[in-house]
Amino acid sequence: MFSHRHLLGIEDLSPADITTILDLADTYVDQSRSTAKHSDALAGLTQVNMFFENSTRTQASFEIAGKRLGADVMNMAMQASSIKKGETLIDTAMTLNAMHPDLLVVRHPNSGAVALLAQKVNCAVLNAGDGRHEHPTQALLDALTIRRRKGRLHRLTIAICGDIAHSRVARSNIMLLGKMENRLRLCGPRTLLPAGIDKFGVEVTENMDEALDGADVVMMLRLQKERMDGAFIPSVREYYHRFGLDAAKMRAAKPDAIVMHPGPMNRGVEIDGELADDINHSVIQEQVEMGVAVRMAAMDLLARNIKA
Amino acid sequence: MFSHRHLLGIEDLSPADITTILDLADTYVDQSRSTAKHSDALAGLTQVNMFFENSTRTQASFEIAGKRLGADVMNMAMQASSIKKGETLIDTAMTLNAMHPDLLVVRHPNSGAVALLAQKVNCAVLNAGDGRHEHPTQALLDALTIRRRKGRLHRLTIAICGDIAHSRVARSNIMLLGKMENRLRLCGPRTLLPAGIDKFGVEVTENMDEALDGADVVMMLRLQKERMDGAFIPSVREYYHRFGLDAAKMRAAKPDAIVMHPGPMNRGVEIDGELADDINHSVIQEQVEMGVAVRMAAMDLLARNIKA
Amino acid sequence: MFSHRHLLGIEDLSPADITTILDLADTYVDQSRSTAKHSDALAGLTQVNMFFENSTRTQASFEIAGKRLGADVMNMAMQASSIKKGETLIDTAMTLNAMHPDLLVVRHPNSGAVALLAQKVNCAVLNAGDGRHEHPTQALLDALTIRRRKGRLHRLTIAICGDIAHSRVARSNIMLLGKMENRLRLCGPRTLLPAGIDKFGVEVTENMDEALDGADVVMMLRLQKERMDGAFIPSVREYYHRFGLDAAKMRAAKPDAIVMHPGPMNRGVEIDGELADDINHSVIQEQVEMGVAVRMAAMDLLARNIKA
Repeated sequence: MFSHRHLLGIEDLSPADITTILDLADTYVDQSRSTAKHSDALAGLTQVNMFFENSTRTQASFEIAGKRLGADVMNMAMQASSIKKGETLIDTAMTLNAMHPDLLVVRHPNSGAVALLAQKVNCAVLNAGDGRHEHPTQALLDALTIRRRKGRLHRLTIAICGDIAHSRVARSNIMLLGKMENRLRLCGPRTLLPAGIDKFGVEVTENMDEALDGADVVMMLRLQKERMDGAFIPSVREYYHRFGLDAAKMRAAKPDAIVMHPGPMNRGVEIDGELADDINHSVIQEQVEMGVAVRMAAMDLLARNIKA
Repeated sequence: MFSHRHLLGIEDLSPADITTILDLADTYVDQSRSTAKHSDALAGLTQVNMFFENSTRTQASFEIAGKRLGADVMNMAMQASSIKKGETLIDTAMTLNAMHPDLLVVRHPNSGAVALLAQKVNCAVLNAGDGRHEHPTQALLDALTIRRRKGRLHRLTIAICGDIAHSRVARSNIMLLGKMENRLRLCGPRTLLPAGIDKFGVEVTENMDEALDGADVVMMLRLQKERMDGAFIPSVREYYHRFGLDAAKMRAAKPDAIVMHPGPMNRGVEIDGELADDINHSVIQEQVEMGVAVRMAAMDLLARNIKA
Repeated sequence: MFSHRHLLGIEDLSPADITTILDLADTYVDQSRSTAKHSDALAGLTQVNMFFENSTRTQASFEIAGKRLGADVMNMAMQASSIKKGETLIDTAMTLNAMHPDLLVVRHPNSGAVALLAQKVNCAVLNAGDGRHEHPTQALLDALTIRRRKGRLHRLTIAICGDIAHSRVARSNIMLLGKMENRLRLCGPRTLLPAGIDKFGVEVTENMDEALDGADVVMMLRLQKERMDGAFIPSVREYYHRFGLDAAKMRAAKPDAIVMHPGPMNRGVEIDGELADDINHSVIQEQVEMGVAVRMAAMDLLARNIKA
């Protein structure tokens, strides 16, 4: 039983909720791999994607997911929208709400904006990333990738490396992987680690060898351009030397460890290009594939509650 | 019987035509409120939205309307289009026409451009706003909102306030509400009132108390940015003081008067923010909802003539 | 039997392949002219349009074609995409590939980029124009237009005029019309003719009268803005005088000769506006119509191989 009205963050989900989503997503992986990709779980419903930040990748994933489930899908180009005419976020949301969408997928640069919006509208809201807060479908797709590759989603040693402090991907993953009882190690330069994070039962280090020692999973984060060669890191070259993942650093991990990245990658900044393409370790393309399946599952479960 | 080939303006419609559209729209309100939003009145047909002016709200409304009726819907981003390559409006329209759309929804900054285009193409054309000329679906959705709230669409006292001179919304509404035999009062600064408008059987005043006295409906118009603090009004502050709608000015209207606005609103310019959100008076969100239903009805009626 | 996995260029197609596509396209012309435009040859499949160059016309044609065949169609706005975040073309393609599209329609400014991409992905790739290399669906739609107008696609005298050197349209047409055993004449200023082109069994001239003498088909090319009044032509006025097609120059061709242009046209540059609209000669709108049909046929044939 998945009883939620919205998918706003991993914080709201129980381990059973997570398992429900991933189990359903497994079936949607098969559907998407076939030539009968289209079914009708969302037939008769209207899905609207409102992206206040550009994200071709995530928007495309939600759009394909909705279309494959038979929804009427509409993308709202929010940069070209009434926002420019001085309309507030809430006015925009209320206007859209009046058109009776059933599923509203929202990305917004401000932490908490999606939850605020969810309070105002009548439909199911899916958070596609809000500021530094949460990106729940990313954590779910990462979890599905891990579970399929490792055969389980608990008692794994998982290193999350890079810009932890500014990353909603890291934040959602830490919560999800923690709830499923994994051993988490966070690694990055001190300036990119959130203060007080070690209180959350995770290990924190600035040493990649320590972080990767015996790891089953190595999850790299994207370094944002605005933090390159700035106040946060000494230089891209120095950053890559100390924190960039390459074959040499991977030797500390288990021989069958997997390498993950939420994309898009900065090759030669946070990850070596060859390692990223090494099918013995890298599951980066599989993460993208799991993204569609996880979004199909999440929207299907929310739609069941709408129709009930 | 709705015998028109296009929906270019309220000017072409008889009171019976208007009633036909609104009656059908009522059924589409119910469909859009259900979880079986999708039907097939437009199945097998191709709808193209050509917006030469940005309008997230109106385009979204037409897109949702068409998709809910089963049309294949395509948006043409006209700013990124061949227009840039020096192609004329007519060449663009003829090119699109050759792809056999059945329904063509057009917004254009020039008055008359949509009617010109309708002469050239083989499909049904819906005017989604052309210059200062007409915005027929806006007037129809306003009419549907009024009829549902007031139980009738005739013998009402209706004040239309603000920038009348430049507003296609006002123009279409004046025609529709006049045809249905309502008492119309127009109010705004003299610089924003069209010359000679009092010949059309409407009352004209610069005094909001006079305009709203005993009114059943108060329809506010959007003040365009380019006319704020410019040649047309002394200042935004002064404009709001004299013409902005607030609870105090509303006391002149009937106690159950409704407040309308085509959106997007400038809160604190033409309307007080609290009044706009006051569910005892404001029907602004309902107007948006009626917009989808009215567009479904209009496209359905035009499609029946295509198929006949 | 059409056994290809991709449609990358005319170069790969046999005369029998071309005939197979055109024969199927003829049936799709009828479907698009009816009010039952929607069928399900691509139902259950996902089509993605990735345009790295803007082209409203070609993208719209592929989008309408896919939707009419029941595909789930998604447009990726590549300028607003991860490309900006420093992702490579191949990373972008691999990411998309992981979402399991079945048909990938690609336009790219670099010659060869589409073929490179086709090697990396698992789905069928259609070249919608790559650099100066090929634009196979344009040549196919031109062929269909000629075949329907002239009753055959061989032993015709066809003049291709204008900027041959930079034109993928010319290149694909020369290959297709050559394979079908037509007599080809190329005409344009020396600076816009490719070196060594006469080796390919075509006649080359700088004289429009010679080129059009007894021609069945006159195919004009678009002059790119960046080549107007620049290094390549003396001036637009001089260009139009010598190479622009008008009624006077058409007198050299056969009385029933047809005039073609891939659009969008520069009226008064490469073609006289009146001639372009003269329904006794011009088939320019018909080319656009044939474009949808040819793309439906090509995607249908590729999809049959996917499903097989």
